[in-house]
Amino acid sequence: MSAQLEHDEHAIRQVVAEWMAATRRGDTRRVLELMTEDALFLGPGRPPMDKSGFAAASASQTSAPAPQIDGNSDIREIHVEGNLAYLWSALTVTVTPTDGSPAMRREGHTLTIFRKERGRWLLARDANMLVKVQG
Amino acid sequence: MSAQLEHDEHAIRQVVAEWMAATRRGDTRRVLELMTEDALFLGPGRPPMDKSGFAAASASQTSAPAPQIDGNSDIREIHVEGNLAYLWSALTVTVTPTDGSPAMRREGHTLTIFRKERGRWLLARDANMLVKVQG
Repeated sequence: MSAQLEHDEHAIRQVVAEWMAATRRGDTRRVLELMTEDALFLGPGRPPMDKSGFAAASASQTSAPAPQIDGNSDIREIHVEGNLAYLWSALTVTVTPTDGSPAMRREGHTLTIFRKERGRWLLARDANMLVKVQG
Repeated sequence: MSAQLEHDEHAIRQVVAEWMAATRRGDTRRVLELMTEDALFLGPGRPPMDKSGFAAASASQTSAPAPQIDGNSDIREIHVEGNLAYLWSALTVTVTPTDGSPAMRREGHTLTIFRKERGRWLLARDANMLVKVQG
């Protein structure tokens, strides 16, 4: 693998790690910095969500009392070509409400497109195929 | 848009059209020619399926009496970079059993990765977010 490819793969892994860390601490502003302006989130049984939709959904989630969101991303593949990359990941997300009701766990695969803009890798398209599992 | 990009986009649209046509006539062999050897199909609530899994699933579907499979792909976006491309599509698939039982309709979005190998665009990764809808 070329040094440039290795550099790009590492940078994309960093974006994923930062995304998870920012989500964990409820830092929506930071998450929004890690996506393109035209970012789109696709999932089963719901219309595509754009960046402002993502911000709105996160804001409603972080209204008090905010649930604790934790996740684990097992990156299966990163493929980089120029300023475009895709990432396949097996993801687990656990949402723990603060009111003591049971945690909700979702598991499944994601296929995510990243674009390099002004030297920074950003999430551009996300296909989220997570489903609820026994918590 | 450059002539090369236009050419690539057109070629990818052709692959999608051929895929749908081959599926419609139950021509699994042709569909298999339109994907890479390492192709992977991801969907909610099921493990990733590789090319041989795809072939096996299609064979079991095409055992007599074969249901009629029809689909419509509304391509929302194609983004090409070198030998890599992604395609976002709104897809409707209708499966009509030959025994007179009601047709099953699935709708939703797909995010698909194509790679150019030896000058031919082939499907490499597919995130299928279709869900059952009222037929």
